Amino acid sequence: MLTVDLGDRSYPIYIQAGALSDSDLYRKHLSGSQAIVVTTERVAPLYLEQLKNALDPATQVSTVVLPDGEEHKSLAVLEQIYDVALKAGHNRTTTILALGGGVVGDMAGFAAASYQRGVPFIQIPTTLLAQVDSSVGGKTGVNHPLGKNMIGAFYQPQAVLIDTKVLASLPPREYAAGLAEVIKYGLICDQEFYDWLQARSESLAARDSVVLEEAIERSCDCKARVVAADEKEAGLRAILNLGHTFAHAIESAQGYGVWLHGEAVAAGMVLALRLSISKGYLDATALAPLLEWLRAVNLPVEPPQDIAVERWLELMRRDKKAVNGKLRLVLLRRIGEAFLTDEVSEEELRAFLGEHATAGIAE
Amino acid sequence: MLTVDLGDRSYPIYIQAGALSDSDLYRKHLSGSQAIVVTTERVAPLYLEQLKNALDPATQVSTVVLPDGEEHKSLAVLEQIYDVALKAGHNRTTTILALGGGVVGDMAGFAAASYQRGVPFIQIPTTLLAQVDSSVGGKTGVNHPLGKNMIGAFYQPQAVLIDTKVLASLPPREYAAGLAEVIKYGLICDQEFYDWLQARSESLAARDSVVLEEAIERSCDCKARVVAADEKEAGLRAILNLGHTFAHAIESAQGYGVWLHGEAVAAGMVLALRLSISKGYLDATALAPLLEWLRAVNLPVEPPQDIAVERWLELMRRDKKAVNGKLRLVLLRRIGEAFLTDEVSEEELRAFLGEHATAGIAE
Repeated sequence: MLTVDLGDRSYPIYIQAGALSDSDLYRKHLSGSQAIVVTTERVAPLYLEQLKNALDPATQVSTVVLPDGEEHKSLAVLEQIYDVALKAGHNRTTTILALGGGVVGDMAGFAAASYQRGVPFIQIPTTLLAQVDSSVGGKTGVNHPLGKNMIGAFYQPQAVLIDTKVLASLPPREYAAGLAEVIKYGLICDQEFYDWLQARSESLAARDSVVLEEAIERSCDCKARVVAADEKEAGLRAILNLGHTFAHAIESAQGYGVWLHGEAVAAGMVLALRLSISKGYLDATALAPLLEWLRAVNLPVEPPQDIAVERWLELMRRDKKAVNGKLRLVLLRRIGEAFLTDEVSEEELRAFLGEHATAGIAE
Repeated sequence: MLTVDLGDRSYPIYIQAGALSDSDLYRKHLSGSQAIVVTTERVAPLYLEQLKNALDPATQVSTVVLPDGEEHKSLAVLEQIYDVALKAGHNRTTTILALGGGVVGDMAGFAAASYQRGVPFIQIPTTLLAQVDSSVGGKTGVNHPLGKNMIGAFYQPQAVLIDTKVLASLPPREYAAGLAEVIKYGLICDQEFYDWLQARSESLAARDSVVLEEAIERSCDCKARVVAADEKEAGLRAILNLGHTFAHAIESAQGYGVWLHGEAVAAGMVLALRLSISKGYLDATALAPLLEWLRAVNLPVEPPQDIAVERWLELMRRDKKAVNGKLRLVLLRRIGEAFLTDEVSEEELRAFLGEHATAGIAE
């Protein structure tokens, strides 16, 4: 068990096979006599009954089954959660249980942050990406047609239950998307972890449960430490966003759901490394092994080639890290050490994008 | 100047004629170079220019003019704020300025709580009700068709600017509605303040500026102390809701905007006093002077008579103070001392509502 250390908002992360159906965990972290399970059409048939059976039979349980996909992470779909909660008479002592991937966790978390001005919630992530990233740290929210995660709150869960068994059922594309975030932790947090991961890339790709459990634990540990140091992203926390300014632009440009978030992050990280190298921060030898590794797990190493440079810039300017109109980017100084900088001028970025992020890219 | 004492979320309340156009106050509390003024169709022609002229000319200012009225305090209208903010490129360093009554303050506050996971905001209340009540304490949110303020957040402003000059332009009905909340503070906080107010009821009704300023200051002081002791309404803060469980039911039953919130609170407080008396908590002599006072300022002392008892109960059960399905009500032990209780059974409440809150009410 890890702990996210945030004073009176601290909470545990349980990483164990079977966590999803462990009654003791729910008994420990569900304080009222009501619960709302938020899940999706794809996840419900797999795990909803298991979860419900693990709850105290005296609990009044409502269920909200949302459509799958980033394109449904909207205010309109969020309203379905409020509707169910109010119709079934859930009050401020209810607990919202987020059962699913990152989209469900973000939406259920924001519903918890805003229903009756805040009710408790528990994250039960069922994708690798949600397990290592979105379920930890309290970022919740929905997309706006003009930008990703533009409406939301910092709102911490009561607990995160990571059941490593569920990863066996994950479609290959989703699994690979999660690996992108695992690799990210190596890049930003810890060269030794990065090397460890790379040495085990085949076991990881084969979903070896022992290697995977350790990879998840070390990823969550990195995230928990960064979040504890900077809960609301005043500075340091931004490093968790390596590649994400590019990734959000890709997702917005392509339409939510066309690229998986982790896929966009993979391509975005490559751009962040290229830019770090071209700015002279990072040694050029860092790039090739990463490209090889990402390709081996079928992750994209290039952005879509149909985004014009000005469109890139327009989308990137909407990034939440921007301050008074000035873009800030996360770059690498070396493997294991990321930093936030505003020292990339618009001209430099324009030239960089022209070279590496539109049709005719030379590698 | 008063202070709401909440540790690192503490903030000042300025109560002064001309606060709205005091450049120094904005310079002090606006940290970035962007601002979004949220106001309404009725308030904009009166005060929007004054406010804008008081801002640093270098500030990028966007304006959102919402329709007036509680019936527009909805998620759909809230989206207009996000739309304007994103189209104009406001980032996480922007400040939202809420210029208007309680509806604007609640909506702009929730927009601030949720835009890019939270941006600073400043309350500039232009109604008496907003000045003494809704602008202080960080309750923000919107209504849901199934209940008032069901979607929202506890989110504190950077400052509250109360310009007592603006009250001169307030329509009589709005002014009276604000007086209901002022009287509430006397009832829940301080018998001496209650007596002081009652002795000055004519000056208050005539909007005497000296009396009014003191009444606002003492009301805000009561509210600030209660909020400091219990920011998120774990217990004590609920006393600020005297009469509000009844009032919210009235507003829901009649349709938002038919009764003003303060009018519903007046009728709701009378019901709370009647119930306090019938339960033996409060001396019966407390009622008649309050009824006389409310009538003198044209506030309703009876709820609408067309709500059936079962409908009352259904609406009251949605109250956010309810715990595990059990209603909790704020009652009075004496003038100046309120308390939260769950010792009113559903049967008692049913009998009470049958007698006092539907057609045929005997006084």
